[in-house]
Amino acid sequence: MTGFAGHVLRGHGQVMFLPHAAAGAVFVAALFAGGWEFGTYGLGGAAVGTAAARLLGVARDRVEAGAEGFNSCLFALSCAVFLGPERISTALFACLGAVVVTVVTAAVVRLLRAWDLPALTLPYCLPATGTALAAPAFAHVWPSAPSPAALPAAATGAGAPAPAELVRGFFAGVAQVFFLDRWYLGALLLAGLFLASRAAGAAACTGSAAGTATAWALGASAERVADGSLSCNAVLVALALCGVFLEASRPALLYAVLGAVTATVATPALEALLAPSGGHALTWPFVLTTLTFLAAARSFPRLGRRHRPAPGPATTPPSADRRPHPAAPSTPPGTAAA
Amino acid sequence: MTGFAGHVLRGHGQVMFLPHAAAGAVFVAALFAGGWEFGTYGLGGAAVGTAAARLLGVARDRVEAGAEGFNSCLFALSCAVFLGPERISTALFACLGAVVVTVVTAAVVRLLRAWDLPALTLPYCLPATGTALAAPAFAHVWPSAPSPAALPAAATGAGAPAPAELVRGFFAGVAQVFFLDRWYLGALLLAGLFLASRAAGAAACTGSAAGTATAWALGASAERVADGSLSCNAVLVALALCGVFLEASRPALLYAVLGAVTATVATPALEALLAPSGGHALTWPFVLTTLTFLAAARSFPRLGRRHRPAPGPATTPPSADRRPHPAAPSTPPGTAAA
Amino acid sequence: MTGFAGHVLRGHGQVMFLPHAAAGAVFVAALFAGGWEFGTYGLGGAAVGTAAARLLGVARDRVEAGAEGFNSCLFALSCAVFLGPERISTALFACLGAVVVTVVTAAVVRLLRAWDLPALTLPYCLPATGTALAAPAFAHVWPSAPSPAALPAAATGAGAPAPAELVRGFFAGVAQVFFLDRWYLGALLLAGLFLASRAAGAAACTGSAAGTATAWALGASAERVADGSLSCNAVLVALALCGVFLEASRPALLYAVLGAVTATVATPALEALLAPSGGHALTWPFVLTTLTFLAAARSFPRLGRRHRPAPGPATTPPSADRRPHPAAPSTPPGTAAA
Repeated sequence: MTGFAGHVLRGHGQVMFLPHAAAGAVFVAALFAGGWEFGTYGLGGAAVGTAAARLLGVARDRVEAGAEGFNSCLFALSCAVFLGPERISTALFACLGAVVVTVVTAAVVRLLRAWDLPALTLPYCLPATGTALAAPAFAHVWPSAPSPAALPAAATGAGAPAPAELVRGFFAGVAQVFFLDRWYLGALLLAGLFLASRAAGAAACTGSAAGTATAWALGASAERVADGSLSCNAVLVALALCGVFLEASRPALLYAVLGAVTATVATPALEALLAPSGGHALTWPFVLTTLTFLAAARSFPRLGRRHRPAPGPATTPPSADRRPHPAAPSTPPGTAAA
Repeated sequence: MTGFAGHVLRGHGQVMFLPHAAAGAVFVAALFAGGWEFGTYGLGGAAVGTAAARLLGVARDRVEAGAEGFNSCLFALSCAVFLGPERISTALFACLGAVVVTVVTAAVVRLLRAWDLPALTLPYCLPATGTALAAPAFAHVWPSAPSPAALPAAATGAGAPAPAELVRGFFAGVAQVFFLDRWYLGALLLAGLFLASRAAGAAACTGSAAGTATAWALGASAERVADGSLSCNAVLVALALCGVFLEASRPALLYAVLGAVTATVATPALEALLAPSGGHALTWPFVLTTLTFLAAARSFPRLGRRHRPAPGPATTPPSADRRPHPAAPSTPPGTAAA
Repeated sequence: MTGFAGHVLRGHGQVMFLPHAAAGAVFVAALFAGGWEFGTYGLGGAAVGTAAARLLGVARDRVEAGAEGFNSCLFALSCAVFLGPERISTALFACLGAVVVTVVTAAVVRLLRAWDLPALTLPYCLPATGTALAAPAFAHVWPSAPSPAALPAAATGAGAPAPAELVRGFFAGVAQVFFLDRWYLGALLLAGLFLASRAAGAAACTGSAAGTATAWALGASAERVADGSLSCNAVLVALALCGVFLEASRPALLYAVLGAVTATVATPALEALLAPSGGHALTWPFVLTTLTFLAAARSFPRLGRRHRPAPGPATTPPSADRRPHPAAPSTPPGTAAA
């Protein structure tokens, strides 16, 4: 599918590194299954971000691959979740923010190109964290709720999760990438992944299993294991490190599992860091872990970096943060991954 | 005006990107009108920073353009405001800190040169935030006041500001750049800006108007709209993005307004982040927003970057973070902007 | 001494920039004198980190110089101190973390090479801070202690320290680098430093004296002056700036003292920043101050940078973050400093 609608759907696929409109369509279906607000804000955010990038004159191949839609998609979803989806102010704020996300995307792409590193979802994390921190100061944006500021507390009553909770956590970890918390929506998202690429589906399963097992082994509370909030970053790390930015191989698989474990431990660390100001970990653990592991990979000769053209100016295709999943059918010639 | 006094006055002008001794003199007058402590600490900080840079052998053209004075000027002002101006310990600490600011300036200039980005006021923000965080641990530095640590609270009683408060906020936003909070001092500073460059004055007005309007539209408390503390970063962003680092044009103006809006929202975000340790937003929102928007500008073909010589080593003129305002009469041949 | 044991001992020496097995042996003795847990975790951490680097195929000369052992040594020590050394879970977590430290080391080396800056102990600070922040969320890792989260408080009852406390603080500052808090262990560590290099010993004494004097002059509490926790970063800064990364000279000595003062003030700033989430300053003040002062040094013609081969890819010796102390007898041909 080409045209604007295709770019927007590909933007949804790119959340999981898939420049693939069909997978994106499955993801949109999962969002609407989670509630009208998820579907509407996700589609709206990706559309505004894609349109803003076109208006600003961003390189055509980035826009077509959906590389300009996935960060604004996630930003709009975060606005719906944190500020309340039914308020007009939230919708206006999400639209304005989606334009800013486009600017932040261009900046992050350029800054990280110095090390030949991808932007990942950093262009979404920065403004979304800023919004979560700033919102309570603005009465027209913030729902009349108490301030979310609190000191982080130690885990209490860490009853071991039951097997059923582990299984739910396995699927919910995938769902949480899109702010969804029901496990069967995670299963639907996984189906979309397998539809586009069996390798991507397997990597996501590995990441979710590694994240859930780590959370369980370290004694996270049963509730947090089951809702997938500790393992969702592990899903993205495993996708990125095994197949997207590094050649899929046995060493890369082990490396991806180590990265998934690291991201799972990093999640409550970032939550604690942001808790006093009421922040959220978002996909910061994924971004920080993946950038670290990718920067390090060059020093480890057993890990093969996937071939990539030399980085050029952001206005010239192909740019540094796009990378098709190897097994993904690359519909347009200039496909790209997050 | 040349000689040491001229460099120090230009250091004051550089706070608003003006390597212009006359504008700097007007700014100094505004500081003394705000109180002896503002004038004394501002002048003293700029003088110590300029002298330290000369002693350390920093490139001559940077020193002459005032590029080594404005960060230490702001640092000394922050010491006066946070630690109490009448204490000897504050004066000594500000002198020592002004030397450290010179070191931080050289480091930031070198680190950001990798992306051809200017240092802005980052060399002031880092040590000033460090001082605000560290001071309560040192009894000889900290006035016998309670610890400023607190969890951030949501805005309450957000009565809409009256028109007169909007007007006061418009001028106070300019004044807050120098830690001043009376609106007529902002008007005096604006007069200095227009004296040096009509384009700079217009850009500052645009930024202050955009910041004040954003704060009002999002429902900030009337008090914060009126005291200019939410819009002062917007003033600096608009100056930087429309005329100083990007060619003044219609797209650049829209881009600068988007940046001013972003900086206004970012201000309470940074306040919330630093509140638990009693910090202050300072000009962090300006620095982070401007660096992001400048790094991104290369990807947007409609925005023209102002011509700049190739970056060289910091000891060789002309260096990367100096840039005359286009319309500013550049008295010395090697003038420079923040 | 060559072979794996030699690499591990050199890893201990590298904590103080000494690629010197004999100095490392003295440091290990000081750790065991401090308690079995310090010696065991220090040795174990350095061994696991060195082994992981060999397995991952890191450049041989880095491994042999101990440059892959000192960050994992410090990480394991931090686990023992924060999570309780006698628990099996702590040992397992420290082993896993030491592998992650190896990955973080490779990443930081590569990222900082863009500015020709050394990695220092940043690869230890990042995961150790992450662990301190995350641990309370994991019941199997966290000892059944209350959450360490608190708002920072202002110093109270800052009675001036007695002369004996100043002397104790002078030695304890060196001991605190290894998490030891008894002053005579600091004296033993200093003996190890002088054994390897008189210049290094003198630099460490300068740093500790500058840090202790700064803490006293600014009015830190007597307790904190005496336990060395405010001056330990100053010790490392003075070592780095006078002899290791800059040529030892009179200007370099003054620069190192300024750096030591800065790091001492930065220590409570970082403690305040991390306090709400129960964090610790670790060697962050040293890392941030030294990177800033080294990046700036190029702009100050009076400071001579020590000769260093051109930076190459991390898999090719010699890499950017290794640097023998000039006066240290360089046992193996490819010696290296932190």
